[in-house]
Amino acid sequence: MTKVSFKPAGKTIDAAPGTELLEAARKAGIEIEAPCGGKGSCGGCVVRILSGKVDSENTGTLSPSAVSRGFVLACKTKILDEPVTVDIPEQMGKEGGQFIDETKDTCLVDSDLLPKKEQLEPLISKILLQVPDPQLEDGLSDLDRLTRAVQQDRDKKEVAFPLPVIRQAAEALRKDNGKVTVSLTDTPTHYHITGIEPGDRSSRNFGIAVDVGTTTVAVQLVSLPDAKVIATRTAYNEQVDCGLDVISRINYARKPERLQELRSRVLKTINGLIEQLCAGNEVEVGDINNAVIAGNTTMTHLLLGLPPEHIRLEPYTPTILEAPFLTAAEVGIEIDPQAWIYISPAVGSYVGGDISAGLLCTGIAAGTDEVNLFIDIGTNGELVIGNCDFLLTCACSAGPAFEGGGIDFGMRAALGAVEKVEIDPGTGAASYRTIGGVKAKGICGTGMISLLAGLFVSGWLDAAGKLNRGKASPAIRIEGRQARYVVVPAAESASGKEITIGETDIENIIRAKAAVYSATALMLDQVGLSFDDLSNIYIAGGFGRFLDIEKSVIIGLLPDLPREKYRYIGNSSLMGAYMVLVSRRYRQRQLELARRMTYMELSTDPAYMNQYTGALFLPHTDMSLFPSVKKQKLD
Amino acid sequence: MTKVSFKPAGKTIDAAPGTELLEAARKAGIEIEAPCGGKGSCGGCVVRILSGKVDSENTGTLSPSAVSRGFVLACKTKILDEPVTVDIPEQMGKEGGQFIDETKDTCLVDSDLLPKKEQLEPLISKILLQVPDPQLEDGLSDLDRLTRAVQQDRDKKEVAFPLPVIRQAAEALRKDNGKVTVSLTDTPTHYHITGIEPGDRSSRNFGIAVDVGTTTVAVQLVSLPDAKVIATRTAYNEQVDCGLDVISRINYARKPERLQELRSRVLKTINGLIEQLCAGNEVEVGDINNAVIAGNTTMTHLLLGLPPEHIRLEPYTPTILEAPFLTAAEVGIEIDPQAWIYISPAVGSYVGGDISAGLLCTGIAAGTDEVNLFIDIGTNGELVIGNCDFLLTCACSAGPAFEGGGIDFGMRAALGAVEKVEIDPGTGAASYRTIGGVKAKGICGTGMISLLAGLFVSGWLDAAGKLNRGKASPAIRIEGRQARYVVVPAAESASGKEITIGETDIENIIRAKAAVYSATALMLDQVGLSFDDLSNIYIAGGFGRFLDIEKSVIIGLLPDLPREKYRYIGNSSLMGAYMVLVSRRYRQRQLELARRMTYMELSTDPAYMNQYTGALFLPHTDMSLFPSVKKQKLD
Repeated sequence: MTKVSFKPAGKTIDAAPGTELLEAARKAGIEIEAPCGGKGSCGGCVVRILSGKVDSENTGTLSPSAVSRGFVLACKTKILDEPVTVDIPEQMGKEGGQFIDETKDTCLVDSDLLPKKEQLEPLISKILLQVPDPQLEDGLSDLDRLTRAVQQDRDKKEVAFPLPVIRQAAEALRKDNGKVTVSLTDTPTHYHITGIEPGDRSSRNFGIAVDVGTTTVAVQLVSLPDAKVIATRTAYNEQVDCGLDVISRINYARKPERLQELRSRVLKTINGLIEQLCAGNEVEVGDINNAVIAGNTTMTHLLLGLPPEHIRLEPYTPTILEAPFLTAAEVGIEIDPQAWIYISPAVGSYVGGDISAGLLCTGIAAGTDEVNLFIDIGTNGELVIGNCDFLLTCACSAGPAFEGGGIDFGMRAALGAVEKVEIDPGTGAASYRTIGGVKAKGICGTGMISLLAGLFVSGWLDAAGKLNRGKASPAIRIEGRQARYVVVPAAESASGKEITIGETDIENIIRAKAAVYSATALMLDQVGLSFDDLSNIYIAGGFGRFLDIEKSVIIGLLPDLPREKYRYIGNSSLMGAYMVLVSRRYRQRQLELARRMTYMELSTDPAYMNQYTGALFLPHTDMSLFPSVKKQKLD
Repeated sequence: MTKVSFKPAGKTIDAAPGTELLEAARKAGIEIEAPCGGKGSCGGCVVRILSGKVDSENTGTLSPSAVSRGFVLACKTKILDEPVTVDIPEQMGKEGGQFIDETKDTCLVDSDLLPKKEQLEPLISKILLQVPDPQLEDGLSDLDRLTRAVQQDRDKKEVAFPLPVIRQAAEALRKDNGKVTVSLTDTPTHYHITGIEPGDRSSRNFGIAVDVGTTTVAVQLVSLPDAKVIATRTAYNEQVDCGLDVISRINYARKPERLQELRSRVLKTINGLIEQLCAGNEVEVGDINNAVIAGNTTMTHLLLGLPPEHIRLEPYTPTILEAPFLTAAEVGIEIDPQAWIYISPAVGSYVGGDISAGLLCTGIAAGTDEVNLFIDIGTNGELVIGNCDFLLTCACSAGPAFEGGGIDFGMRAALGAVEKVEIDPGTGAASYRTIGGVKAKGICGTGMISLLAGLFVSGWLDAAGKLNRGKASPAIRIEGRQARYVVVPAAESASGKEITIGETDIENIIRAKAAVYSATALMLDQVGLSFDDLSNIYIAGGFGRFLDIEKSVIIGLLPDLPREKYRYIGNSSLMGAYMVLVSRRYRQRQLELARRMTYMELSTDPAYMNQYTGALFLPHTDMSLFPSVKKQKLD
């Protein structure tokens, strides 16, 4: 038998030589999803060998550079007779070890909002050039000839080259008889050349869309010539160890070395995701030439190493709303060092580039005159209301509960997360479904909503968020003044320990939903509109793969409106970043939207506290606002 | 007694505690010039303490950062009772330890060629701004307010900020109530902000002009608001250990790690000179916001890390002639990392930015219609002939002899260099003068010309470069088939060993002068002009503080023309770089000159070898070309 250790789970098992790694992992209680069923064709089960030799077959899914860095397909790798240590790439904090291939997610955004084929134009294109040979007579330098070749059949704009590209020019121009591929971006005054490679590499142009959330980071790898999404991966933002919300991060960042630490942590998260995406999809990191990053204003400041202090202090002034184009090397993103990074523009200190990106996924971006509401529920909640004539925005602090933060068994929407719960009205016991159908590891946002709505409607939870002590249920346990509800019994969970939710957790969830609801109500109030004036309500957030609108209304997260007005659009920040990545026209549209938005400060409005306090019940103190819920309770 | 060690000379002496460092150095045979006579007011005797404590008084000449890095004034520093190691900054290769303050050099260029007061405009200016306080109402970011403050009273161009400046913005804007100094450069499309500092720092704007020669590097520190030269320092290019001329450097650079080595070596030379200049002149390196670098095409390529191979291979194509603006951080120059570096534009592989800079020091730049000839004699010789209507240029390989390279006791023009020699016709013995009047250390270019002319005219050297073996002289020593001439007896030299010149050295000098003369003659020939058509001849080079035209004609370096046609303009590359540094108009003028020049390839012309062979005599095989020399010989 051979010792096989798994990181970061910290588990070690004994396996017979010849055992498949996928099987060894399962034996250790670690689920690795193998979407293609172990045929080695999907790259979904990519893991990394940290030490020790294995017998691994590369079916062509892994790039040579990925293989050289130790990545293997778990389904095509066998244990030999020496100890090995295996890293299961996606690290999920205390949960450790799971991962989920999100490429198969359905696009939740209306297809007529997506860039059309003729609108596809990434920031940096790869262009094949034939550069004439050098001549003694004309006295032209390599760069002179390259410049002329770029200008041929184009405008006579100046051509700008960064030093690292100049360094490669002489060799690149001579390696394939003057046939070179340049990475080119076209600005109003210049053609900027960000890369030069010998031969025809024009099809190897990749980009990444990045959503940097306070709790969760998502990276999407995109093939730029055809705007095809290759894969998406998410991970917890490694900054979570330094504070759960933006205010605690800002406080943490007060010392320069701590600002540096936060910057390094989020870079580590992003770069780790990029590495996994590339390793599993035959893409070299150096072929990624574009990146669009969307995040709230604090996340953007921390990523760029900008002191965020004044975001927190009156008059809440960020250093930047619109960042210049930056190179990957400057920002610290490990792709082509000369790649251009576009930071999604912010509106204010509390309405960031995630919102201007998300708005691209709504009818507002299409220029409708119907009044639409866009709600993005993350650790911070942001709202935008408007149409082609007006755009107002505000923010509220929801907290990280819906992404699993601050909840004992909370987790983000990943393999093993409880995403749906049904309650037996008689016994109060739960039946549940996990993402991927594997053993449960925790509860994600949609699971929490589903759970609370089920408990409330069946009478096992009261409007104040207290579990029913009056009726005995095997699922409810009284621990002193606190009660706790068992969602998953010990025998059924991945860890072998039960998964529960306590009254303190429930309180956190109620606070989160109250913040969102009260901000929505107050904002409408302030612009003199009622809920009925809304034509469409777009909900975005990291709850899970879907959002059950019915249950969200039951707990009072969303107002009790006709369900057909609602659209759940998933991670709209990432989706918007994708649109901006593949289309310059969408970048322009986003910038115009960001500049049109007017920011309203809610927290200084005395009416806010009233609204909020009223919403700290399930679904609300004023049940007349939730007629459909009242009806269900009575049924 | 305390041990005092001197680097890089490698000498150690014993000194009594309380001894002045200046005196201790003298005791070790190391001359440190103290131009102010030890009053601590000129900063000329700055040295660096590498280890050990000393009792040092700072008279205010040294900046706090220089003091913190161990720089002291040797005249104001006393030895204590612990061993110390002292670095005498300027390193002169095998000579080690001397240095010379070149601030007092007279400007050799016609004053009407220098930028007028109204033409002074450096690339980057420092501008004081009053930025309004942030307001909750307007929703402007720090950068928005800064942008508006820049645009106020200026064009509404876009304002661009690099990331490191953005990082400093929040603090800088709040430290002195919105009063900030920005470093600003104005391009046709943008205002680029390269720095931001709280308070009024507008007078602290410095620049450096750099001449990167194959053998010698010169750096000049300039106060930009008034275009005042603060000081100049020179050192051997540390690349000399990797080859004496450009061709051997190009060969050395063929492996990437060797290209890196050459780049590091020249950067070390430049950065060392900058550090010394700043230390001695109360300037912080971070206050240097501009740099202009002139050098031949190979030197520029090596400095920027560009493979120079194709400069040497047909059809002699460099990667760049005109470099983009680069930041100091990219290039590796240790000044303000965001400072802009302008590389003087080249004409071809063998006529570089040193020549386009040097041309600014001639009447050609002033647009004269008289035909002028410009000869820059360095390791490579370059010639330009022309006026406002035409400009032709060519190059020849002179070798490093006139800068001291490849000559046994050769050295560059620095303290202790023999710069003038007179020969006693009777005994053949030399009397000489050294730079600074100190003990002799070697012979510089002007010394060699003076020596050869004197020996030739007095009959101690024949036209073929052989010393007179027929007459006994105490100064001539026969060593086998070689003869050797003693310039400085052992007792009079700094090292205690005699300083001599051998027949091989003389051959090298003759080859150098023949290359220059023959190129001049052939070029005129090719354009159908004669020497008499020339109105002015500008001679530039690193011979020394002056060039004796008379003696240069005697050895046949320069044609035998009326002496009033000659102008020695010293290091015109450095002077031209200075002009470009302080005036954007001169930068434009230089670019136009560089683009107007037509490069002629001499080496492929069969007539060149004839011309060259004819010139391999003193002064020439055809004495009719040198009537005045013939007359002197006869006298």
